[in-house]
Amino acid sequence: MNKIITISREFGSGGREFGCRLAENLGIKYYDKEIISKIAEKADLSEGYVKEVVEKRPMPLFPMTIGATFAAVGVYYPLMVEESVYTAQTEVLQELAEQSDCVIVGRCADYILRSYNPFKIFVYADMPSRIKRCMERSTPDEQLTEKEMKKKINNVDESRAKYYDFYTGQKWGARQNYNVCINTTGMDIGALAEAYSHMLK
Amino acid sequence: MNKIITISREFGSGGREFGCRLAENLGIKYYDKEIISKIAEKADLSEGYVKEVVEKRPMPLFPMTIGATFAAVGVYYPLMVEESVYTAQTEVLQELAEQSDCVIVGRCADYILRSYNPFKIFVYADMPSRIKRCMERSTPDEQLTEKEMKKKINNVDESRAKYYDFYTGQKWGARQNYNVCINTTGMDIGALAEAYSHMLK
Repeated sequence: MNKIITISREFGSGGREFGCRLAENLGIKYYDKEIISKIAEKADLSEGYVKEVVEKRPMPLFPMTIGATFAAVGVYYPLMVEESVYTAQTEVLQELAEQSDCVIVGRCADYILRSYNPFKIFVYADMPSRIKRCMERSTPDEQLTEKEMKKKINNVDESRAKYYDFYTGQKWGARQNYNVCINTTGMDIGALAEAYSHMLK
Repeated sequence: MNKIITISREFGSGGREFGCRLAENLGIKYYDKEIISKIAEKADLSEGYVKEVVEKRPMPLFPMTIGATFAAVGVYYPLMVEESVYTAQTEVLQELAEQSDCVIVGRCADYILRSYNPFKIFVYADMPSRIKRCMERSTPDEQLTEKEMKKKINNVDESRAKYYDFYTGQKWGARQNYNVCINTTGMDIGALAEAYSHMLK
């Protein structure tokens, strides 16, 4: 069975950089944003639309099974789309896991690929260092104040948590769902990735 | 400043073995149970009494500052003893941290030694593997059923959490209080300690 490493992360914690460098050090594939394109292709939807679906919270109160019943009578079309996106996401992740060793960031991969016994990492950091990281990486057209950035970080994490909790029935960020939870506060991400790549070789 | 590594751990997770092996691999001091003797000596109390004080929950509802006020009028003598034990514990830990690099298990060391910038590790595992580990290590005079062992594990963790929360004002096991949270479920503790000793060299 291929070696699968999944990364879940708080927004602004450097989880994506950590995952990317880890894959680079281990000489294995790294999947992140390209998963969206693959899902879009499989679900026959635009990338933008898929991105919107996976980045916003799922519709509350209706688990997929109920959603499908309503959707069948045409009342909850968005839920049908959400379900097709999640199904495509599951298929895409399974295909990637079958292909080769890899690091996968986000997309509930830790849960979806549980039968592959992945090594599950959760990356986090304290709020000041997440704000600092996000401010440093802001594009020129995204000039937020620190207060606005904090609000954005909390919103993104809330959406991630809701999405994860809804589809997995588990609690996002709860330590029991991961092999290791890594705090990047005050740490050099490159050095951390280097250290963990030795461990995961 | 000396390198201080603190280990907090769920009961039965193998945190003590992990800490001991880590110290061995790093060639640095390891402190665990001997801290109790040092506290007893400093507070002029018996080891057994100190053990009882630090292993049971602190008295609820009375933070130390209030407790001392009551104690001054002789109403809450046990709180005075608890306070003197905690004071001795603080002094002992600071002396150890000043002496040399070390690994310290338990005793709120992550919080008490925060000015030494320790590397703070939380070790945990799922309940079945903690029960298994504890059953395997039971002494002949402690023959508990799995159900009884589970109850014991929960009780010990509850006491640890209450003690930690009371004295630190933080939440025991909450990821933000640690540099890394390590799940030992299904892992070889020796290999884990080996890996982390490379990282912490």
